[in-house]
Amino acid sequence: MKYSVLTVGDELCIGQVVNTNAAFIANLMSGLGFSVFCHSTIPDEPSIMKSELQRLMDNSEIVIITGGLGPTHDDITKGVLVDFFGGQLVVDTNTLSYLESWFESRDRKITEVGIAQAMIPSKSRALNNRVGTAPGILFEFDNKLILALPGVPAEMRYIVTNEFLPIAKNHFEKFSTEVQQFLTIKTVGIFESSLAELIGGPENFPIGTTLAYLPSAGSVRLRIGAIAASMEKASELIDEMKNTIISKAGKYIIAYGDDSIQSVLGNILKSNGLTVSVAESCTGGMLGAAFTDNSGSSAYFKGGLIAYSNDVKIEQLKVSKATIDTFGAVSEQTAIEMARNISTLFDTDFGLSITGIAGPDGGTTEKPVGTVWIGVADRLSAKAFQYKFGNDRSLNRERAVSKALELLIKKVNEK
Amino acid sequence: MKYSVLTVGDELCIGQVVNTNAAFIANLMSGLGFSVFCHSTIPDEPSIMKSELQRLMDNSEIVIITGGLGPTHDDITKGVLVDFFGGQLVVDTNTLSYLESWFESRDRKITEVGIAQAMIPSKSRALNNRVGTAPGILFEFDNKLILALPGVPAEMRYIVTNEFLPIAKNHFEKFSTEVQQFLTIKTVGIFESSLAELIGGPENFPIGTTLAYLPSAGSVRLRIGAIAASMEKASELIDEMKNTIISKAGKYIIAYGDDSIQSVLGNILKSNGLTVSVAESCTGGMLGAAFTDNSGSSAYFKGGLIAYSNDVKIEQLKVSKATIDTFGAVSEQTAIEMARNISTLFDTDFGLSITGIAGPDGGTTEKPVGTVWIGVADRLSAKAFQYKFGNDRSLNRERAVSKALELLIKKVNEK
Repeated sequence: MKYSVLTVGDELCIGQVVNTNAAFIANLMSGLGFSVFCHSTIPDEPSIMKSELQRLMDNSEIVIITGGLGPTHDDITKGVLVDFFGGQLVVDTNTLSYLESWFESRDRKITEVGIAQAMIPSKSRALNNRVGTAPGILFEFDNKLILALPGVPAEMRYIVTNEFLPIAKNHFEKFSTEVQQFLTIKTVGIFESSLAELIGGPENFPIGTTLAYLPSAGSVRLRIGAIAASMEKASELIDEMKNTIISKAGKYIIAYGDDSIQSVLGNILKSNGLTVSVAESCTGGMLGAAFTDNSGSSAYFKGGLIAYSNDVKIEQLKVSKATIDTFGAVSEQTAIEMARNISTLFDTDFGLSITGIAGPDGGTTEKPVGTVWIGVADRLSAKAFQYKFGNDRSLNRERAVSKALELLIKKVNEK
Repeated sequence: MKYSVLTVGDELCIGQVVNTNAAFIANLMSGLGFSVFCHSTIPDEPSIMKSELQRLMDNSEIVIITGGLGPTHDDITKGVLVDFFGGQLVVDTNTLSYLESWFESRDRKITEVGIAQAMIPSKSRALNNRVGTAPGILFEFDNKLILALPGVPAEMRYIVTNEFLPIAKNHFEKFSTEVQQFLTIKTVGIFESSLAELIGGPENFPIGTTLAYLPSAGSVRLRIGAIAASMEKASELIDEMKNTIISKAGKYIIAYGDDSIQSVLGNILKSNGLTVSVAESCTGGMLGAAFTDNSGSSAYFKGGLIAYSNDVKIEQLKVSKATIDTFGAVSEQTAIEMARNISTLFDTDFGLSITGIAGPDGGTTEKPVGTVWIGVADRLSAKAFQYKFGNDRSLNRERAVSKALELLIKKVNEK
């Protein structure tokens, strides 16, 4: 059973906003067992929107539209929907009374644009939005569902999760004849091509399964897909394929499912009662931010020092001035002192440090942009590792964080 | 002149990966003056890909395909392109010799999948990829350009920026009859609907311009669009519209163009010779990461303390234990001490602090999830502001960072 996403908005078309909405919706819909026909992003142009809506409806059972539901003149979605499905805009009384109290609670009287938000196409019904002003708009047509949502991510998420998900689930159970499921396996320390040679081609896979390779900086994820008549059968196929991969490439696997590397590491630290602190220079707090992505991270993450200037490295982090003068701030010796000192200062089992030249400025022949030293300390010893990433500041910072997390996973697993 | 992006990959369709490639390409193409027909994302299915490629070619002068060029069996793009344009796969000798030395520099002999990467459709030509193994593949057909790129963002970016951009620019200059340009204006402190009432409807705009409203957490961006016969004329229209907006809503404007709030703030600090340090609890380093997004931030950002645990707040940041015991770690008093102490410890002109309950756990009736205190200190005084965000951990952390940056902009501008 197929679904599609139609995203409306010039801001996406010109690259001003990254389309995180499509990914969020896709994640939920594939969790239910749906497969995708197309995610389509178009400008705020009614004629393009109409023909695109027709095309997606012709090829999918559910079409989810996001964007263009706001209160200003550039929001075209409602007009197009009335044109497409017939009828006219009418006041939805539930929405109106909710909006009146929404404005009231902000000590304001409902405005004209506020009232316009309560108007929906007469052939649709409203789905509640309790985090903003534009309701979701749902059409049922020919055993298909067409849902229009506001483009603001938090509002879209609220309506999909709380209002639409049960409807979509019910629709799937009523009409679907097959289920699609996925499992992702994260590997590190092996190239995509070598991994493919280890695992072998699709002629060896269980029938009904697929395997995709998703390389990214420093790791390759494998995604198993399975299509079957039921959830149970799909899960069995996935398990079978998973065990094949474990038998052939098990030693490169570090995580299963949607787990991020920081959550895998967090679980290891927590279950062993271990703590960590960080000392960051070029990543400026990103490593700490990664650790604290996980709720419950206070069980193992105590904090850190963002030692961006050398003053802070010397005065707060107690890196010896002689070390920095002799070897430089981006050096094995500085990385080691940073990692060791932070674990001592913060009294943690491990200290992780990052110091590097993120770029675009600051590179030299000897230490070009992309040179990063990462230090790992436990209570007894400390070691640092050098990496040469690339020229992209933001990518260099991301890679440094991933590598630091990987190094600590290795270190903890050695224990 | 229109372009489209066709993204191929199950990982995007099931929401495992957010489509940042489309945004990157869109940003560059609209910079050249192109407008968009459609960004389309489809699964790894040859039949869907073929019909989608046809549809996009029928409606655009340039189609950029990303994904499906890797070395494994799930990569369908080359096969589809040969099917579509005719010919067969042939070795590109330039790419092959580059790949041989690429493997050699890693002390490995080129593998079979390595050689497969050097095969391109006979009717295309290769565009160099110097950060990975899959070259770009360019077809010229009927005065249209069709470009296939690897999906790995760094590789896609390299080929587009270094190899394709001059070709696309040339194509545009040769064939286009109109130019589209944009300018974004960022506002804070006013609702979308109130801003729309201040500025008025499209009947007041210069002919050829459009205005879009892009609300997000705590701010509304306005995007002026202009279509004209030349870049000069488009710029004039944008200036005219910009001046209208300044005259009507100037006091809410904080930035123009693609400038992020951190770069606007960075420029203000730098030009005034001022410095800042941060003390973060629930954001765990994200505020420091935001400051250090900007290259050159060392001129004004010295560093910070990630005081995630109360131990670190008390021992390292010198927040009084009595304050935390009496008022709690998430309180006005703690936020003030954090901001004041970090600016003293790090000897900076300003200290910014964030302490809050990001969620999903840790909320109480009195201090529900989403409660955040942000402290701002200069060398003389400190003040803290309370916010009640929502239930989403990651959104709460992002909003806290944005608010902290906004508060500091206000503070510096008061001086």
